[in-house]
Amino acid sequence: MNKIYFTPDVNATLGEIISARKDSKLFVITPENVPQLVPPSLLKYAFTIDDSEKNKTIANAENIWQEMLRRNISRKDIVVNIGGGVTTDLGGFAAACYKRGIDYINVPTTLLAMVDASVGGKTGVDFAGIKNMIGAFRQPIATIINPDYLLTLPDKQLLSGWAEMLKHGLLMGGPELNELLAINPLDRDINQLRRLIRKSVEYKSQIVEKDPQEAGLRRILNLGHTAGHAFEAFAINNGLDITHGHAVAQGLITAIILSNKYYGFEQLMIERLVRYIKGLYEPIPFACNDYEQLIALMRQDKKNSAGAINFVLLTKPGAPHECTPISESEIKDALDLTRDF
Amino acid sequence: MNKIYFTPDVNATLGEIISARKDSKLFVITPENVPQLVPPSLLKYAFTIDDSEKNKTIANAENIWQEMLRRNISRKDIVVNIGGGVTTDLGGFAAACYKRGIDYINVPTTLLAMVDASVGGKTGVDFAGIKNMIGAFRQPIATIINPDYLLTLPDKQLLSGWAEMLKHGLLMGGPELNELLAINPLDRDINQLRRLIRKSVEYKSQIVEKDPQEAGLRRILNLGHTAGHAFEAFAINNGLDITHGHAVAQGLITAIILSNKYYGFEQLMIERLVRYIKGLYEPIPFACNDYEQLIALMRQDKKNSAGAINFVLLTKPGAPHECTPISESEIKDALDLTRDF
Repeated sequence: MNKIYFTPDVNATLGEIISARKDSKLFVITPENVPQLVPPSLLKYAFTIDDSEKNKTIANAENIWQEMLRRNISRKDIVVNIGGGVTTDLGGFAAACYKRGIDYINVPTTLLAMVDASVGGKTGVDFAGIKNMIGAFRQPIATIINPDYLLTLPDKQLLSGWAEMLKHGLLMGGPELNELLAINPLDRDINQLRRLIRKSVEYKSQIVEKDPQEAGLRRILNLGHTAGHAFEAFAINNGLDITHGHAVAQGLITAIILSNKYYGFEQLMIERLVRYIKGLYEPIPFACNDYEQLIALMRQDKKNSAGAINFVLLTKPGAPHECTPISESEIKDALDLTRDF
Repeated sequence: MNKIYFTPDVNATLGEIISARKDSKLFVITPENVPQLVPPSLLKYAFTIDDSEKNKTIANAENIWQEMLRRNISRKDIVVNIGGGVTTDLGGFAAACYKRGIDYINVPTTLLAMVDASVGGKTGVDFAGIKNMIGAFRQPIATIINPDYLLTLPDKQLLSGWAEMLKHGLLMGGPELNELLAINPLDRDINQLRRLIRKSVEYKSQIVEKDPQEAGLRRILNLGHTAGHAFEAFAINNGLDITHGHAVAQGLITAIILSNKYYGFEQLMIERLVRYIKGLYEPIPFACNDYEQLIALMRQDKKNSAGAINFVLLTKPGAPHECTPISESEIKDALDLTRDF
C-alpha cells in the first residue's frame, strides 16, 4: 500500500495525495527544530514534539492522542509525520492506535528516516529502557522523500543514515555495495545520494512487501542490529552521544566477523569493510568487563526466542542468513575482534 | 485466522492448541475474581488484573507489559485472556502492541465477551473518558467458548450479553430473531443458550471475516451502539450502575425508532421489540435537558466523520444500512420516543 515518492516539492506531492481525499483533515506531527522543512501551508495543522529519543514514550503518544481528540480528528483523517526517525516512529504509532488506526504519511527529513524508519510500517515507542518495545506494524499510505533536505543535515546525522545504506548494500551485494564503498557521503554529491537513496529504499520496500510483519525474510534487515542495538544502549547508559547508525556501523563489523566464522565470509572483504567503516565512524569504546552488559542488552532483541541470541549473518555480500543462534562465548570472541580491528 | 471452539473442556482445547507450539511460553491475563475458571494447570502463568471498566487504561496495559518483560515473554509466546470483555480488550491490546504484536487466545467467561468482545479482533483501552479510543485490530489465534460458565454468571451480566445477541438477531432477521424473542435468557436453558450463542458468534465472525477493519460492512455490528454508547457513558457520568448490554438494549430502541422514520421499519415490530426489551431491562432514566449531553457523547462515536452523527438503521430485521447521517433535531425526536415507549 505504501507509495514512495521522490520529489524536491513535498508540498505539491502532499497536495496531490490529499486532493483525492477531500473530506480528510490533516494532523501534522513535527519536531520543534524543523519548522523550516514544514510546507508553510501545513504549519496551521502542526503539533510540535520534542524528538529526542528519550521522548519516544507512551506518555508522549498520549500527548499526541489528547491533541488529536481536542482537534476532533476522525478515522478518515490523516496524520502527516514530518521529521526524523523518532517523529515517524512515534507519530506512526500514534496513528496506528488512534481509534484503532488511521492513515498516515511520512515525510522523513533525515537520511536515517529516509532509508529506514519512514518505510516498512514499523511504528513504536521505547518502553522500560528498551527501544521500540511497544508498537504496531502499520504501513504509511505514502512516504515522501526529498533528498535536498540532506544538504543542511549535520554530518553526524548523515553518517547515521549512511550506516543503514551500507547494511542494505551488504544485503544486496555486487555492484550496489561496491558503489557505496567508493563514496564518502560527507561530500554531499546530491545527485549521487539521490540515486543511491532510491536504490536503498526500493530494496527495503521490496523486502517489506514480501514479509510485512517480519515472520521470516524481513529479519535480514536486522543485519548489524543485534550488536548495534547493544552498542547503542551501552553508549546511552554511559553518557556517550552516539547515533543509531554509528552503533549499527560497528554492529556490522561484529556481524561480519561472526559471518566469517560461521559461513566463511571472505577475510579480504572484512578488511575492506572495516577500513571503510573506521574511516567514517569513531570506534565506540568498550572493554572486556563490559561484555556481560552488552550480552544482556543483546538478549532484549525482539528477534530472540527461548533464550538464544540470534544474529543475521552473511555467506558473502548479497547472501544473508535470517537467523543464526550464537553462544555467549562466541559473541565474546567476536567482541574481542571488533575491538581489535 | 481466528478459530472458534465451543467446548466444556477449555483446558483440553488449550492444551491441543499449545502442543502444536512447543516452544511458546504462556502469559495468562485474568481478573482477580475468576480464578475458579482458570484451568489449574495455567494458574502458574496467571497475571491478575482488576477488570472493572475504569481500569481499562494505558496505565494498566503498561503494567501488563512490565510483567511480560519481567517474565521474558518473546514474540513466539502466547497471551491467554481468561475473563470478560475488559480482560479480552485490554489483554488483546497488550498482546497487539508488545514487541509490535504477539499471538493471543481469548477464553471469554461472560456472555457479553462470548458473543461480542472475544471475537473480531477489536482490542483497546479507554482514553480521556472515551471508550476504546486507543487500540488495534488484531485477531486472536483462537477463541474458546465454554457456555457452562453461564450457569454461574450473575443475571445482570447474562442480560448484558443477551442485548448483543438481540442485535445480531435483528441483523440476521427471520427465524433467528423470532427464536430469541421467544426466550427469557434468565431461564438459563443451557442447551438452548449453547445453540443460540453458536449462531450469534458464527454470524459475527462471518461479518468480521468479510471486513476485518470495519471499512464498510462491519459497521452494521454497531447497530444500537450510537445511542447505546451515549446511554452508557451518560449512566456512568451520573453514577448509575448500568451494563454495556443494558445501554445497548435501549440504544436498539432508539435505532429502530429512527429506522421507522427513515426506512419504514414496521410499527408492529417496534412494539413487539420494545415490549420484549422493556420486559428484561429497566429504562435508563434521562430527561429533555440531558439531550445535549447525550448528543455530545454520540459525537465521540468512532463511526463519525466531518461532524455528522451516523446511525446503523434497518429497513426490516435482516436488512441493515451501514451508515445513515442523522440530524440533531431528529435524534432529539427519537430520544423523545425512546423515553415515551
